[in-house]
Amino acid sequence: MKSHRHEITIETKTRRAFVNITSEVEKVLRASGIREGLCLVNPMHISASVFINDDERGLHADFERWLEELAPHAPTEQWRHNDTGEDNADAHIKRQIMGREVVVAVTEGKLDFGTWEQIFYGEFDGRRQKRVLIKIIGE
Amino acid sequence: MKSHRHEITIETKTRRAFVNITSEVEKVLRASGIREGLCLVNPMHISASVFINDDERGLHADFERWLEELAPHAPTEQWRHNDTGEDNADAHIKRQIMGREVVVAVTEGKLDFGTWEQIFYGEFDGRRQKRVLIKIIGE
Amino acid sequence: MKSHRHEITIETKTRRAFVNITSEVEKVLRASGIREGLCLVNPMHISASVFINDDERGLHADFERWLEELAPHAPTEQWRHNDTGEDNADAHIKRQIMGREVVVAVTEGKLDFGTWEQIFYGEFDGRRQKRVLIKIIGE
Repeated sequence: MKSHRHEITIETKTRRAFVNITSEVEKVLRASGIREGLCLVNPMHISASVFINDDERGLHADFERWLEELAPHAPTEQWRHNDTGEDNADAHIKRQIMGREVVVAVTEGKLDFGTWEQIFYGEFDGRRQKRVLIKIIGE
Repeated sequence: MKSHRHEITIETKTRRAFVNITSEVEKVLRASGIREGLCLVNPMHISASVFINDDERGLHADFERWLEELAPHAPTEQWRHNDTGEDNADAHIKRQIMGREVVVAVTEGKLDFGTWEQIFYGEFDGRRQKRVLIKIIGE
Repeated sequence: MKSHRHEITIETKTRRAFVNITSEVEKVLRASGIREGLCLVNPMHISASVFINDDERGLHADFERWLEELAPHAPTEQWRHNDTGEDNADAHIKRQIMGREVVVAVTEGKLDFGTWEQIFYGEFDGRRQKRVLIKIIGE
């Protein structure tokens, strides 16, 4: 069994953002030399998500509005986590809705995806450097 | 390390549906000959989920009503994704709530499940052929 | 390829609770002798979650209040699942929001975590013995 590990760094200019990281994951997969296996992708932070969905600007606007209604950033005093001096309770909650990680099948050296599957980093408390872990195991 | 890949095809008659695919996954696992490892099951589409929960009709009715309140299909104009000519923005969002994939332990050649765990395909934009990927790695 | 399986048992005194199980998972990982691979952690029940987030009391209070608003326990008659004689429909739904399982990278014999990542068992229908499965594969 082979394993391969790589970190990528992401810094968004806005508090919230969705970044397509599919081509970066594909690059890491090619470097790994692994042909059959599983590929895990997760943020190393608890106010961000990695998820698979559509690379369509309108959908991302829908996610943004919908998440903000479900777990609003403001007023920040509504969340007990923010009593600690933080202002990112909503980011921890948004991350739970969108999920932490994805596990993707690796087949014949490629991410085994349907036509529209793309991997996104979902940032909910950005404007600073964050790390995304890619771990691939297989042969 | 061994790996095994199989696709199953699902076409629901209704826009939304929950389909128990546990026995199909078990069949694929037996065919793989893998005794110890991990089994990934995911839709190859971005308007559907694979999840583990109870095979109980009342609960599925609760999921349906609750998801429809959280991310309603209509009016379709409420979602920017639908400006592209689609009408399935709600399906992309419902899929995020219910999750994309499951990873199940394989132990002694079986899905390592508690008493009530069953694997479901959750369709949110059906009435056409969809594919579910099963990828098993182990020994 | 090596594989290692372990169950831990959890019984909460309250219906709902969040229990940090990181050190127990680390103990199982050390016992496995696996240095590089993947570690799956999931409840063997369908009214509980395993998830990764912050070990901060205020945030857990936020999760509790927010989940209760999204999928309230009472009145229990609002859920069709409870027509079966159960009263835990809300627990099945809360588990979907928070997710079933986590998959964690194992690197150099350790859980490959960022600074704040901690693994929690999220109980939504407690006061009885529940099992959590840890399955590690790798080398």
